[in-house]
Amino acid sequence: MSTARVAMIGHAFMGAAHSQAWRNVHRFFDVGLTPQMSVLVGRDATRTAEAGETLGWQRTATDWREVVTSDEVDIVDICTPGDTHAEIALAALAAGKHVLCEKPLANTVAEADLMAEAAQRAAHDGVRSMVGFTYRRVPAVSLMREMIAEGAVGTIRHIRGTYLQDWLVDPASPLVWRLQADKAGSGALGDIGAHILDLAQFTTGQRITGVAAQTETFVTERPLPDDPSRSGAVTVDDAMVALARTDGGALCTFEATRFATGRRNRIGLEVNGSHGSLAFNFEDMNVLEHYDPSDGDRSGFRRIQVTEPTHPYVAAWWPPGHGLGYEHGFVHQARDFLTAIAEGSDPTPSFTDGAQIQHLLGAIEQSAGQQASWTSLP
Amino acid sequence: MSTARVAMIGHAFMGAAHSQAWRNVHRFFDVGLTPQMSVLVGRDATRTAEAGETLGWQRTATDWREVVTSDEVDIVDICTPGDTHAEIALAALAAGKHVLCEKPLANTVAEADLMAEAAQRAAHDGVRSMVGFTYRRVPAVSLMREMIAEGAVGTIRHIRGTYLQDWLVDPASPLVWRLQADKAGSGALGDIGAHILDLAQFTTGQRITGVAAQTETFVTERPLPDDPSRSGAVTVDDAMVALARTDGGALCTFEATRFATGRRNRIGLEVNGSHGSLAFNFEDMNVLEHYDPSDGDRSGFRRIQVTEPTHPYVAAWWPPGHGLGYEHGFVHQARDFLTAIAEGSDPTPSFTDGAQIQHLLGAIEQSAGQQASWTSLP
Amino acid sequence: MSTARVAMIGHAFMGAAHSQAWRNVHRFFDVGLTPQMSVLVGRDATRTAEAGETLGWQRTATDWREVVTSDEVDIVDICTPGDTHAEIALAALAAGKHVLCEKPLANTVAEADLMAEAAQRAAHDGVRSMVGFTYRRVPAVSLMREMIAEGAVGTIRHIRGTYLQDWLVDPASPLVWRLQADKAGSGALGDIGAHILDLAQFTTGQRITGVAAQTETFVTERPLPDDPSRSGAVTVDDAMVALARTDGGALCTFEATRFATGRRNRIGLEVNGSHGSLAFNFEDMNVLEHYDPSDGDRSGFRRIQVTEPTHPYVAAWWPPGHGLGYEHGFVHQARDFLTAIAEGSDPTPSFTDGAQIQHLLGAIEQSAGQQASWTSLP
Amino acid sequence: MSTARVAMIGHAFMGAAHSQAWRNVHRFFDVGLTPQMSVLVGRDATRTAEAGETLGWQRTATDWREVVTSDEVDIVDICTPGDTHAEIALAALAAGKHVLCEKPLANTVAEADLMAEAAQRAAHDGVRSMVGFTYRRVPAVSLMREMIAEGAVGTIRHIRGTYLQDWLVDPASPLVWRLQADKAGSGALGDIGAHILDLAQFTTGQRITGVAAQTETFVTERPLPDDPSRSGAVTVDDAMVALARTDGGALCTFEATRFATGRRNRIGLEVNGSHGSLAFNFEDMNVLEHYDPSDGDRSGFRRIQVTEPTHPYVAAWWPPGHGLGYEHGFVHQARDFLTAIAEGSDPTPSFTDGAQIQHLLGAIEQSAGQQASWTSLP
Repeated sequence: MSTARVAMIGHAFMGAAHSQAWRNVHRFFDVGLTPQMSVLVGRDATRTAEAGETLGWQRTATDWREVVTSDEVDIVDICTPGDTHAEIALAALAAGKHVLCEKPLANTVAEADLMAEAAQRAAHDGVRSMVGFTYRRVPAVSLMREMIAEGAVGTIRHIRGTYLQDWLVDPASPLVWRLQADKAGSGALGDIGAHILDLAQFTTGQRITGVAAQTETFVTERPLPDDPSRSGAVTVDDAMVALARTDGGALCTFEATRFATGRRNRIGLEVNGSHGSLAFNFEDMNVLEHYDPSDGDRSGFRRIQVTEPTHPYVAAWWPPGHGLGYEHGFVHQARDFLTAIAEGSDPTPSFTDGAQIQHLLGAIEQSAGQQASWTSLP
Repeated sequence: MSTARVAMIGHAFMGAAHSQAWRNVHRFFDVGLTPQMSVLVGRDATRTAEAGETLGWQRTATDWREVVTSDEVDIVDICTPGDTHAEIALAALAAGKHVLCEKPLANTVAEADLMAEAAQRAAHDGVRSMVGFTYRRVPAVSLMREMIAEGAVGTIRHIRGTYLQDWLVDPASPLVWRLQADKAGSGALGDIGAHILDLAQFTTGQRITGVAAQTETFVTERPLPDDPSRSGAVTVDDAMVALARTDGGALCTFEATRFATGRRNRIGLEVNGSHGSLAFNFEDMNVLEHYDPSDGDRSGFRRIQVTEPTHPYVAAWWPPGHGLGYEHGFVHQARDFLTAIAEGSDPTPSFTDGAQIQHLLGAIEQSAGQQASWTSLP
Repeated sequence: MSTARVAMIGHAFMGAAHSQAWRNVHRFFDVGLTPQMSVLVGRDATRTAEAGETLGWQRTATDWREVVTSDEVDIVDICTPGDTHAEIALAALAAGKHVLCEKPLANTVAEADLMAEAAQRAAHDGVRSMVGFTYRRVPAVSLMREMIAEGAVGTIRHIRGTYLQDWLVDPASPLVWRLQADKAGSGALGDIGAHILDLAQFTTGQRITGVAAQTETFVTERPLPDDPSRSGAVTVDDAMVALARTDGGALCTFEATRFATGRRNRIGLEVNGSHGSLAFNFEDMNVLEHYDPSDGDRSGFRRIQVTEPTHPYVAAWWPPGHGLGYEHGFVHQARDFLTAIAEGSDPTPSFTDGAQIQHLLGAIEQSAGQQASWTSLP
Repeated sequence: MSTARVAMIGHAFMGAAHSQAWRNVHRFFDVGLTPQMSVLVGRDATRTAEAGETLGWQRTATDWREVVTSDEVDIVDICTPGDTHAEIALAALAAGKHVLCEKPLANTVAEADLMAEAAQRAAHDGVRSMVGFTYRRVPAVSLMREMIAEGAVGTIRHIRGTYLQDWLVDPASPLVWRLQADKAGSGALGDIGAHILDLAQFTTGQRITGVAAQTETFVTERPLPDDPSRSGAVTVDDAMVALARTDGGALCTFEATRFATGRRNRIGLEVNGSHGSLAFNFEDMNVLEHYDPSDGDRSGFRRIQVTEPTHPYVAAWWPPGHGLGYEHGFVHQARDFLTAIAEGSDPTPSFTDGAQIQHLLGAIEQSAGQQASWTSLP
């Protein structure tokens, strides 16, 4: 078995989650390619060195340009804020490195399109790329996709997606980079709305064709992180709501917010179809609910514990009933990415998939800017 | 204690529910006015006589015009399809009868406005009127309103309302009157959407100021009830989705559908505010969930069993933990209507409230007819 | 259709619940015999007259002996504390009246056996009797019995029954009759333990053959209801726990307590068998949970909403998804009792069934008095 | 920071879980002592070598005696079946190695007592030992203990513990070592009953003083793993039920079974006290339910998501709402064991704690062998 030398750019929340994946994936999955945690890149040398020590990287660096072109790197894993994704990814792809990039793919549609094109070109040379919609790889979500593909819900009538957080309810919460449009692109929309839109499309296999949306910034000024006595403007949305239609005729509602008091990280997705329904809720992440009307008057939503060895990804882990946690989606992502590289196939979600989500985010922003006017996707 | 002689028009589903209320209300509540189930009115003499016998009415009749002007009637209770509400209610009010009218108040905004005006005029003469949004009187819903009024959620950020049914999923389900625009006005929109819009406004005390909506008829032809070998056109919506804003600055999503497979009668209402959240779900109708962040890191959604004697309406019934059912909302409605008559006050929801909901339904239809364009309410 | 003239003895909590049943049963069910609420009997003339007025009885009386032998009474409904059951029931049966008696059937095994014998004798003359284990008639519980009888769980391995209340947690709660052995016989054991034991046997069709039990009185002195400055001894148990075996080989645990803080009236019953499991919880009384392993890796506990017209008792009521409440069990009980009288059959649970429960309660008390020593039932 | 060289004996289910802990603990926690995965010991050289490669151990060996006395080992981690625990642990302690031993501590009370004595002697020389009741270290369970210690429930009235599995429901499931008394000591009793008994004592801080129990083997013959055409006798219990009392006056029920169809790994623990209740359920392992009556008529069981940085162990992981899984208990166990070694303190649960559980298991077996006769603990 050969190895793949990973360079990871960024070492905050996502960096820790990705490190956990690179550290453990080959201990549970037969990936055909052992990852080496070669180099961690950050802007501040001292803090990067500390993070590298804690997270277990072989070395650290501060110049990502040098690293992504280095002969000693096979995979570039981008865990930085969205404003830097395009530049890093384009350079890495140009250097022939496989690229795993956190979502949203970019901060603008234009950047995302460029990245998708570059990824498609690189794929001709066997260079693989993937965007990090990790929630796809929660076993219950993957099972939801499998079951819908097998016909478990029939013709889809409704998709109901919510991603609810509450970390901004307090107006004294500081103006972090995620609240600044130049860094983050958008707010709840791109950070968590992107996930719920991706999950809706991923699980159903349908594409959203049009949207009507509204966004809102409930708290417009917040204290600066470095100097709480001063405040700055919040330049992104706090919340987004949208209606949508899919190419399969489904009627959808979506919501993403950081102001749903008490809902820490509640991703809710329900699909109702002509022959059944499926519902997922990340607060109970090892469970998928399934309603099958063929049980007649003994029908009811079944609480499937997605911990059986026949469920996606589960055989690698623990016995039935011994659930997984948030981080396992990252391990599964690393597994799928490494497997694709080893097998010479293109993994999903591709940069093209990521760009399509970026177009969706763009359409939502456009609709929200025009009083929820209907905005069609190409 | 004096009595109030009730004439009820209509004896189907709603007629049975209202009869249960008139039969029992004074056995549990001190209403100051004992209802007499005087006369039941229906179109077909035989079937009306049978219903009167079953439901316990003193006599039956087929000519509502005669009944609503009779000296032997004090209260007219309208349980017919929406296309007849206006005519009956206007005649009854003109005859000085107190009127309880099922929702939606009418099939058109014009009719509803006429009814509201007539009710306001009649009120000057001590004639009372009320529209039957009974879900307001589920104790958990009434408690939700009380708690919001007391500040339990603070400034409201989000309202999330769904009314999900599934009785039309089967395309062989027949073309009943509720699927015909001339009888029912609209489909899921007016039948159940009206309820969830009313509940959102009732519990929060806020008014919806604008909407963007879509409606859909998934199954456009259905067999005729009397001759299943022939089919007819469904002329109402099967489902409605909407975004909305309130005068209090909340961002809302609403959905009403008869195609949510497995969701028999799921009314879901969640309100997130700056200082708390409340959530109700009719499948668990004796419970109200409350999140209070002041519990610090021991906060969590509390499952309040709304069966304490201090909760709205509950003292009249059973000990704590012995829940109520669907029909009790009708008993509470009769209690509040009779009490208002006895006390000489105007009950709520008034016909004016009913007309406001009708304007909302009209705005939703208008928006849905214009590709979800934003439609403001006056 | 003929009528049955009912005399009810007692007008407290149970009296109100039974009145609701007699008032409404024939409005929803075709019972073949219309109940007349003829006479209400209580000890205090004034309070009984008030209760009769409120609850809707035609007349009231204070001498139960006179009433139960009156020619103007067909049914005697006993809603008094347990110490009076035997005397009243024996007199009524001797007078040829049909008798409905609240549970537990009596305060002692000896009384219960006498009552069972009297009821069996009376049955030869067409006199019917029944004991009021109303929770059997919650639709979800009746469905549980049906499904087990049909093989939904296979060979039963485990029965897990709990009846949890919390109304005695406060040591200042007064010394009501339910806490006095001479009136109530026992405490949690007979009041609510009797229910959970009955439900376990009713749903599974199995009989308990032996028990090991413990009881406890956590608060031994309480203020007198009429003079809180004085206190008296609690002479019944506050809580009971038991292990048991059934004639079908199941291993059981049971618990009944008035000290489960936060559990107002939580009846929990779970049955695990070789081919499935069923679970009921009265806090969610319109639901039955069913696990069917034949769904393979898509198996999960199904949340069956027991509101379909094909479910027991449900067709008489509201459309699917519109749940029932606590009181409906009493209506169903009246329906089954009246139907049995009209059809000339013996209803269940019979006094013999009630006496068998009394033997169980006796065995539990005996075991608890001997440090949980195993106590076999005949 | 110095390192601790770990030798792990056994590489099946528990071996994989412990490896995950040793591999990751220092990446999330500041443990003062970095574990080195030095040597993995198994009986079969080939399979051990494969496991060592997969799990990431530096070398493998087959002679545990040599390893536990080696100068190159600091910690011995025992993950073998219970019949070997005593011998290995005694040797390791004698050699001055810190010992982490899986539960149950031993297969007999005598062995467990020997181990506890040896551990106490070793502790005088700074040698640390700990038994692997990992469920204590699920954050919600640790929080439950904290809250009870702080008075969140007041005087404890009831403890209700169940550990329900269903992996033996199928009679064709093979006769693995866990079903053989000579290897496993007991069945559900020692394997999972030990956990629920430990959790009850751990969270409440009380000790069980007496028990009455029954055990059952529902399927007495099973196919041999290596030759399914032949069968052998199951020599352990399939299920255990028990009543118990604690030194704090609580009345308890316990159940452990491998025959609860549909319950894969459901650990349920509820504690009711004079001033509140707490409930945990491993199927929803990131949640603790708390009932606080001081919320008055707005009281209800609060669903606390135990994912806040102030909750036990949580700060090391992900943001609020991003839950943990089964394996994290093992990481926390490694963290606490390493921290104790580094700080020179004795970790808990100690071998003495493990022996106390063994005495409990012995008392349960004794009671079950004498028809549930009450059996007191010293």
